[in-house]
Amino acid sequence: MRLILLSGGSGKRLWPLSSDVRSKQFLKLLKAPDGARESMIQRVYRQIRESSLGGMLNSVTVAAGEIQLEQIRMQIGSDVDIVAEPARRDTFLAIALAASYLKDVKGANEDETVVVMPVDSFVDVEYFDKLGRIDSALSGTDADMVLVGAKPTRPSEKYGYIVPDNTALRANGTPTSNHGAGSAPERSCPVSKFKEKPTESEAKKLIEEGALWNCGVFGFRLGYLLDIIARNLGVSENRYETIRGQFTDLKRRSFDYEVVEHAKNIRVIEYTGSWKDLGTWETFTEEIGDRTMGNVWLDDAAQDTHVLNELDIPVVVMKEVDHAVIVANHEGILVAPKGQTYHLKEATAHLGGRPMQEEKRWGEYIVLDYCKYGDTESLTKKLTILSGRQISYQSHASRKEIWMILSGVGTLYLNGEKRAISAGESIVIAEGEKHAIRAEETLEIIEVQLGAPLVEDDITRYEMVW
Amino acid sequence: MRLILLSGGSGKRLWPLSSDVRSKQFLKLLKAPDGARESMIQRVYRQIRESSLGGMLNSVTVAAGEIQLEQIRMQIGSDVDIVAEPARRDTFLAIALAASYLKDVKGANEDETVVVMPVDSFVDVEYFDKLGRIDSALSGTDADMVLVGAKPTRPSEKYGYIVPDNTALRANGTPTSNHGAGSAPERSCPVSKFKEKPTESEAKKLIEEGALWNCGVFGFRLGYLLDIIARNLGVSENRYETIRGQFTDLKRRSFDYEVVEHAKNIRVIEYTGSWKDLGTWETFTEEIGDRTMGNVWLDDAAQDTHVLNELDIPVVVMKEVDHAVIVANHEGILVAPKGQTYHLKEATAHLGGRPMQEEKRWGEYIVLDYCKYGDTESLTKKLTILSGRQISYQSHASRKEIWMILSGVGTLYLNGEKRAISAGESIVIAEGEKHAIRAEETLEIIEVQLGAPLVEDDITRYEMVW
Repeated sequence: MRLILLSGGSGKRLWPLSSDVRSKQFLKLLKAPDGARESMIQRVYRQIRESSLGGMLNSVTVAAGEIQLEQIRMQIGSDVDIVAEPARRDTFLAIALAASYLKDVKGANEDETVVVMPVDSFVDVEYFDKLGRIDSALSGTDADMVLVGAKPTRPSEKYGYIVPDNTALRANGTPTSNHGAGSAPERSCPVSKFKEKPTESEAKKLIEEGALWNCGVFGFRLGYLLDIIARNLGVSENRYETIRGQFTDLKRRSFDYEVVEHAKNIRVIEYTGSWKDLGTWETFTEEIGDRTMGNVWLDDAAQDTHVLNELDIPVVVMKEVDHAVIVANHEGILVAPKGQTYHLKEATAHLGGRPMQEEKRWGEYIVLDYCKYGDTESLTKKLTILSGRQISYQSHASRKEIWMILSGVGTLYLNGEKRAISAGESIVIAEGEKHAIRAEETLEIIEVQLGAPLVEDDITRYEMVW
Repeated sequence: MRLILLSGGSGKRLWPLSSDVRSKQFLKLLKAPDGARESMIQRVYRQIRESSLGGMLNSVTVAAGEIQLEQIRMQIGSDVDIVAEPARRDTFLAIALAASYLKDVKGANEDETVVVMPVDSFVDVEYFDKLGRIDSALSGTDADMVLVGAKPTRPSEKYGYIVPDNTALRANGTPTSNHGAGSAPERSCPVSKFKEKPTESEAKKLIEEGALWNCGVFGFRLGYLLDIIARNLGVSENRYETIRGQFTDLKRRSFDYEVVEHAKNIRVIEYTGSWKDLGTWETFTEEIGDRTMGNVWLDDAAQDTHVLNELDIPVVVMKEVDHAVIVANHEGILVAPKGQTYHLKEATAHLGGRPMQEEKRWGEYIVLDYCKYGDTESLTKKLTILSGRQISYQSHASRKEIWMILSGVGTLYLNGEKRAISAGESIVIAEGEKHAIRAEETLEIIEVQLGAPLVEDDITRYEMVW
């Protein structure tokens, strides 16, 4: 059995902490059992290790965007297996690329079971035990796809529902009385229908019919999907390198639409533990533990309010600000009742422009100041270059950069000359000058860019050997 | 008649906009009649000009702390008369210094009437006409002090109340029927008692008795106060220069306690127009006009909520955040229901440390970043030096400074050598190096300080001629 962890899109539903360049699955805000903070992807990886799937960690592949590679390695280890998508093209293309990768690069057999799960599900360890049963559910039945459904705890309007065919279940020998709360059925059951985001009253009725929340898990034989890819993906050759090469030119398509809707026999395994989509502040803050993080004064009398502050600027929240989430960082400051955070996408739709903080291969930066003076623009950033990392050799045609080293030790490569630099030094890099920098010990640098105008892609890269 | 405008303490009641270094009376947030924004002190000064006191603007003296001088001149003109307090010593000492200044510096006669009013009262122009009647109220009665009381509009627990002696008022010939809403009594009336911050039910009873809100206005003969100063101030000689010289060593004392409580005959003039203490966000936001200022997205459905943002970071406030005030700048971020802002002092009591933005004689600065690396500290500021202003000639024993000029043109004076500087240049000022800078056109500069440790008073000043 092979497990594919889908490290999906970034999204703004946890804005301002998540953004186009900072995905929610990497936010280290969840309480780990040892008291430390872990991210969604770290939690899932730890749970796999702790579950009955623990022995097959080397069969786990993370499907992720190319810009996430460094971050994934930093968070779950450099030996993790990653298949990198050259661009965002929705779930069908992501899973297709991963499937061809498993066959052509990892040498997987077409008979092997592949299980795909989103990396941002907040679940119990028991969930992974259920994933382990998908293999036998596929062997023991005529299903071409097996899903996992979580037992609903309320008639949510925000989830997708899977309605099992209870008649078939009874005919199959499982007593209906065994289908109640707290008792997981020992086997899978055919799916009768799906319903996306029902109204509350529809959801109530669905739950009465035994419907389950769709966890977004897909289990199938590798060969089954490779056949669909061959027929429908639209690439010249059904091989990993070819799919990867043509990936950016392919249209976005969802796995639900391209595969699940056309499957003949779909079965579902019921999971009765807790399952949460941590996609909104309302659900996310329930798992954070502490009411505040960072430089925050929150009145003790404020009820069910969470305040997260990544800025140095102190945040003061007084009493009677109840059931709210307040989040501040360089990207934005959010003040919202928890019940409203589902509409965050619309509320932040007007925001665009440059990212104000970003994690990079070499570390991270935050924007401290931006100004426009006539045609000239200035941008002041604080850069953190991690020990052993480097900013590649480059030049800028129409901007000057000034670096002030606040702390650390590094090597500067300026116009072909190498020299050691350290805290207290300042370096002027004029327009056109070739420069690179490597941190021997983590460098913190104030960078001032001045240009007329400042253009993000004014960058020419050069080869060099350190 | 002489008018003293008390430009009082800074306070944190409008935190984070007001702070120890930024007084609320200078916040340009009130809507002026021409649509522009004006500060409290600008509004009062404009109203005096528009009132029946308009002809006596040259008899107005502003009593203010020394650090406020530049700001007052920038806001109401360089020809305004200011008496500067060397330190904060409460109202008795502030008024005593101003009274001795009127006599010894301005040559005021001891028989002249002096009227003192706080600069942060939000009133109608009619209020100033009432101040003009204090002189005749003092002449026509045996009062040694005349106050102004505003007709209450609700039984507030937050104000001080003046209870007039209505018996005396009737005996004095003013018909009681004339004492109703909307009709100002034509003359003053003896004060029977005072009550500070009553409970709501007490306040209701007081209002039934005809009590008025104490506007904090004091009218008296200059000689009356000079006698009290001679007896009670505790300085070696009752002269302006002496009082000023010994000011810092004197104990804080309030004018109410030292003077009003001992006055034998106090009368009050009723003012029926609107009067507001703009000391809390609740009252202040009522006069701002717009719901938002700065980079703010506020849901249209949020009711009676004000969002003020001085940061570049966007603020997003969703619906159902009602009756709230949200204020963000480099000093802090406040989220509070309007009814709670009265408790702001307690909520911000834990905050201290260095100011994060400050107006200076030469312009202003904001702190962009502060870090500690072992013993070494770094502080990154953005300085704005206004055209024609300069930072004085100085050196620092244990910190290095690096300046990057973002915009403007200026003159640098470094170790006795003068040179022109302009946008794009960077200047390294090592420990011990003497430096000054003057803006020919307004300069914007990123300054990085590095020291081990960074000490605020590590500054040696030198004489120089530009």
